Amino acid sequence: VNVLVTGGLGVNGAWVVRDLLAQGHRVVALDVRRDFRLLPDLAERVAYVDGDVLDLRGLLRTVQEHRIDAVAHLAARIMAERDPYDGALTNTLGSLTVLEAARLGGVRRFVFTSSKAVYAPAAGVHGPPQYRPVTEDYPFGVTATWRIYGSSKIHVEAIGTQYAEVWGLEFIALRFGTIFGPGKQERHGPIGIHGRMIEGALRGDPVRFPQGGDQVDDIIYVKDVAQGIVRALLAPAPPHRVFNIGSGAAISYRDFAAAVRTAIPGADVEIGPGLDPVGVGAQTYHHLDITRARAELGYAPAYDAVRGILDYAGVLRTFGLA
Amino acid sequence: VNVLVTGGLGVNGAWVVRDLLAQGHRVVALDVRRDFRLLPDLAERVAYVDGDVLDLRGLLRTVQEHRIDAVAHLAARIMAERDPYDGALTNTLGSLTVLEAARLGGVRRFVFTSSKAVYAPAAGVHGPPQYRPVTEDYPFGVTATWRIYGSSKIHVEAIGTQYAEVWGLEFIALRFGTIFGPGKQERHGPIGIHGRMIEGALRGDPVRFPQGGDQVDDIIYVKDVAQGIVRALLAPAPPHRVFNIGSGAAISYRDFAAAVRTAIPGADVEIGPGLDPVGVGAQTYHHLDITRARAELGYAPAYDAVRGILDYAGVLRTFGLA
Repeated sequence: VNVLVTGGLGVNGAWVVRDLLAQGHRVVALDVRRDFRLLPDLAERVAYVDGDVLDLRGLLRTVQEHRIDAVAHLAARIMAERDPYDGALTNTLGSLTVLEAARLGGVRRFVFTSSKAVYAPAAGVHGPPQYRPVTEDYPFGVTATWRIYGSSKIHVEAIGTQYAEVWGLEFIALRFGTIFGPGKQERHGPIGIHGRMIEGALRGDPVRFPQGGDQVDDIIYVKDVAQGIVRALLAPAPPHRVFNIGSGAAISYRDFAAAVRTAIPGADVEIGPGLDPVGVGAQTYHHLDITRARAELGYAPAYDAVRGILDYAGVLRTFGLA
Repeated sequence: VNVLVTGGLGVNGAWVVRDLLAQGHRVVALDVRRDFRLLPDLAERVAYVDGDVLDLRGLLRTVQEHRIDAVAHLAARIMAERDPYDGALTNTLGSLTVLEAARLGGVRRFVFTSSKAVYAPAAGVHGPPQYRPVTEDYPFGVTATWRIYGSSKIHVEAIGTQYAEVWGLEFIALRFGTIFGPGKQERHGPIGIHGRMIEGALRGDPVRFPQGGDQVDDIIYVKDVAQGIVRALLAPAPPHRVFNIGSGAAISYRDFAAAVRTAIPGADVEIGPGLDPVGVGAQTYHHLDITRARAELGYAPAYDAVRGILDYAGVLRTFGLA
């Protein structure tokens, strides 16, 4: 299968590219800069395209030249709120443009990386202290923290679904939990509380968070994210079009800090009590029900917190990113 | 006040333009065609711009040349579902572009015409047979009938709200009920069940709908829509940014047919029993709670069904549109 991965050199995309290559597929990675730090060993095997998700003509040329069968669309502006024009342009019009290029180019399968940010606040039994998992039918909501980012995901999910209805594109949207993985810290900045814990511990620095230890979240390692995307790219057409992709568990930030101490000898990581360590609102943390992804995509998360942290540290070491 | 009305010659916009002129404001109407059929008496008093909502440079030039203080953004693709690319481009990118032109041009107030299509299905006490009104806090939803249209409204509401937060634009979104008014039938096609009843009756034709008489809906006359928009353009900055604009009542389609017979002597209009006359799903009809618009915008609907139908007939007669 020939796969185009937008954002293919990014902190999530790189692992998608790696998985696909390992399975023998041909991969085109489209990104805004030629940064192979997460794929140093595979730079020769990936077709890199210096592309813009707003460039319909260029995208279509890429799809046609490489005879693309499936697209994984990961490219997005994470910090979409500061400049709402640019945020909506990149995330919404960008996704629309990639969808249209895929349709015009005869692509069969399109996987869109959505987010738990589409969900209404985790209320009642879904919030503290019970954190009962939310299924894909949980209501939509737009929160003040992720106004552009979240509503763009809602809209693009709907657009993609309509592409499927009208034009037969096999559109699949994946709603991820809170992702951690190597490289995220450097590129996405201070939102990566997990990265700050892990990388601080690896440097031997004390890491302190005054609050948030009681907050429970669905924290998924980036290689499970990649697994979800690759399965969605390759699975026989599933009955549903939207899937939660989480870790299969909920864990408190206190327990995550403990996992860092378990995985990294000598780690000096402490987090105080209370909810919402990142200050995005306690109800924006959701425990995702992944029953549907298990059943229809064969998705099975392989990393709990300790295994994820160990792998994260190994990646930094192997690729000299520490 | 200098006001730009996008879609200003359309079935809704024309009444906004008329109201604003009557109150002594200067109006620029931007539209895709120079069709003054709903403003034949005022063509000399309206500055018409043959403009495209996707043309940022042209929009900014219009805003600057006419020293626009406030924008009412009505231009939209109603039939957004058949061609999701074009639908999302016009409705979402178009709105984003008008917002950005307004910001760049120093516009103070921006009124966006949203819709009840942002709401989740009218369930429980909000659906049949109780139809309890839904407030602006009712959950979002995306229905199969209005997938692009509705999710675009959700997204643009969020974008506009973020423009307000980040850049101080006074953004207001109005969520309308089911609108009826002269001209809609001709331009928006078969979605106008009310227009088909009224215009059929005026022609002396029998009008029959096999089902839907039990369906209750919030049916608002276009001049109340215009009142809502004009109040939102001119009111002192309200505490909220999102408002339902409905008729203030819920009425069954059977009673609406009866109102047609009351208003138009000799009308032969019948509708059978059951729900959902238009086939868009019985739960897509919402009764809107307009408490907030009454309190913060001073909105007060002036047309019940009979008065609206009488006015509709009068407009067709006066402007020779029958």
